[in-house]
Amino acid sequence: MKRVSVFAPATVANVACGFDVLGFSLNEPGDEVILSLSDDSGIEITKITGDDGRLPLDVQKNTGGVALLHMCEHLKFSGGLKMEVHKKMPMGSGLGSSAATAVGAVVALNELLNHPIERKDLLPFVLEAERAACGAAHADNAAACLLGGFILVRSNEPLDVIQIPFPDDLFAAVIHPHIEIRTEDTRRILRKQVSLTRAVQQWGNLGGFVAGLHQSDYDLISRSLEDVIIEPVRGLLIPGFESVKNAALDAGALGSSISGSGPSIFALCRGEEAAQKVGKSMQN
Amino acid sequence: MKRVSVFAPATVANVACGFDVLGFSLNEPGDEVILSLSDDSGIEITKITGDDGRLPLDVQKNTGGVALLHMCEHLKFSGGLKMEVHKKMPMGSGLGSSAATAVGAVVALNELLNHPIERKDLLPFVLEAERAACGAAHADNAAACLLGGFILVRSNEPLDVIQIPFPDDLFAAVIHPHIEIRTEDTRRILRKQVSLTRAVQQWGNLGGFVAGLHQSDYDLISRSLEDVIIEPVRGLLIPGFESVKNAALDAGALGSSISGSGPSIFALCRGEEAAQKVGKSMQN
Repeated sequence: MKRVSVFAPATVANVACGFDVLGFSLNEPGDEVILSLSDDSGIEITKITGDDGRLPLDVQKNTGGVALLHMCEHLKFSGGLKMEVHKKMPMGSGLGSSAATAVGAVVALNELLNHPIERKDLLPFVLEAERAACGAAHADNAAACLLGGFILVRSNEPLDVIQIPFPDDLFAAVIHPHIEIRTEDTRRILRKQVSLTRAVQQWGNLGGFVAGLHQSDYDLISRSLEDVIIEPVRGLLIPGFESVKNAALDAGALGSSISGSGPSIFALCRGEEAAQKVGKSMQN
Repeated sequence: MKRVSVFAPATVANVACGFDVLGFSLNEPGDEVILSLSDDSGIEITKITGDDGRLPLDVQKNTGGVALLHMCEHLKFSGGLKMEVHKKMPMGSGLGSSAATAVGAVVALNELLNHPIERKDLLPFVLEAERAACGAAHADNAAACLLGGFILVRSNEPLDVIQIPFPDDLFAAVIHPHIEIRTEDTRRILRKQVSLTRAVQQWGNLGGFVAGLHQSDYDLISRSLEDVIIEPVRGLLIPGFESVKNAALDAGALGSSISGSGPSIFALCRGEEAAQKVGKSMQN
């Protein structure tokens, strides 16, 4: 029986100045998705571990299941599939947990079927699953998880995802406080209107950040890692956010902000050693 | 008597998705500024041509004069200076005319005095002059004129200007309708609040454009050259804007939008031949 195991990493979306357009993948943690062909018909989720029993085994309700259903329909594949999900990352933490399961599932199926679909063209199936899970499909986590490294979602409609090169020595430290925040709630507290002045500051920073990544200019990356629109609002929902961020900056981080809609907090650093030091300071 | 002549090019600011943060310089047209040391004390503007008598010879009221006054004060230079300005570009046309005179003046003085100041550090003197001329100092035209090529103004306060590399084969066509628009008026019609949804679209496009310039990806440049916030409002002030823009796109331009606050309209093109063809279509 053919069987593949796929690791799908956690991801950081928004990345300070890039609300809804920037994301990057982490080396760890992540989900392990094991998919095998089966003689039984249909898709079955046989096991989920690491979720404290909170994720549904119902294929229609699980992001991995939904992504597989859409991909099978697209491929007109009607064979049987059995999926196991080993969640080795926190859920509801702003690290793209739901996207990771879906990415793991579609990459595994593509592998099982000998790559009928190009890697980047798997994204729409993941987005269908995200839409089912969160009510809205934002491609930032999903694309970063699927493609790795830094991605820019230039446009959601039509979907246009761009990979951004980044300097070798760029490392991230991430901590996640033991509280959960629902993405819907963190969206609801955002104002629908922003001042043009702030918007200009934000896109100046986004342009600077994208240029800094291309030019391996750590100083520019650092100066650009500033969110004048979303963080001032969402930071209020995360107890201790300011002190964790300041600890990161004091320990030498290039910048620090909320991962996705939180409560996880990331910091970008120059060098692995620096990232480890920053991570420890953030924990304290 | 030591004397230098400086050519300061016209510039395109905003560049569709980069309101108040992006600018690029043109090869032509531009201002010629001739500056010479003089035994008389003080700064004198001896001649201005090409302005139909509309620019002030009063040093305190001329952008070139104001920029020189600030630079002389900074350098504690009290020698005499005589300046001629030959305006070889349209004024009030959205091509950075006031910035060009000021840039020409400070570059000329820096040359006369054997470069006491680094090129990029001349920018603040130009911005003082822009502030005097327009009421507000936006660095997009000034920085593009001073540094050449594409620039990103990541931040105005503190000033942070970044040069963006661009592909060799990127050419611009610009036309300027024979109407004048005052920058103040074009600012007044902009809303102070924009929707977060549109702002996200805009910064997605800005990120895509900056990435496209770095990666020499003409398709990405083209997809990103879209302004969903400013152009829909300011385009209404320019008679025939839509048809000129459509003519540019139909003739194969990568994208087209308003130069600065208008009424000039630019198009970016792949190759000089394409730019010439596009320019002709826009004129018709």
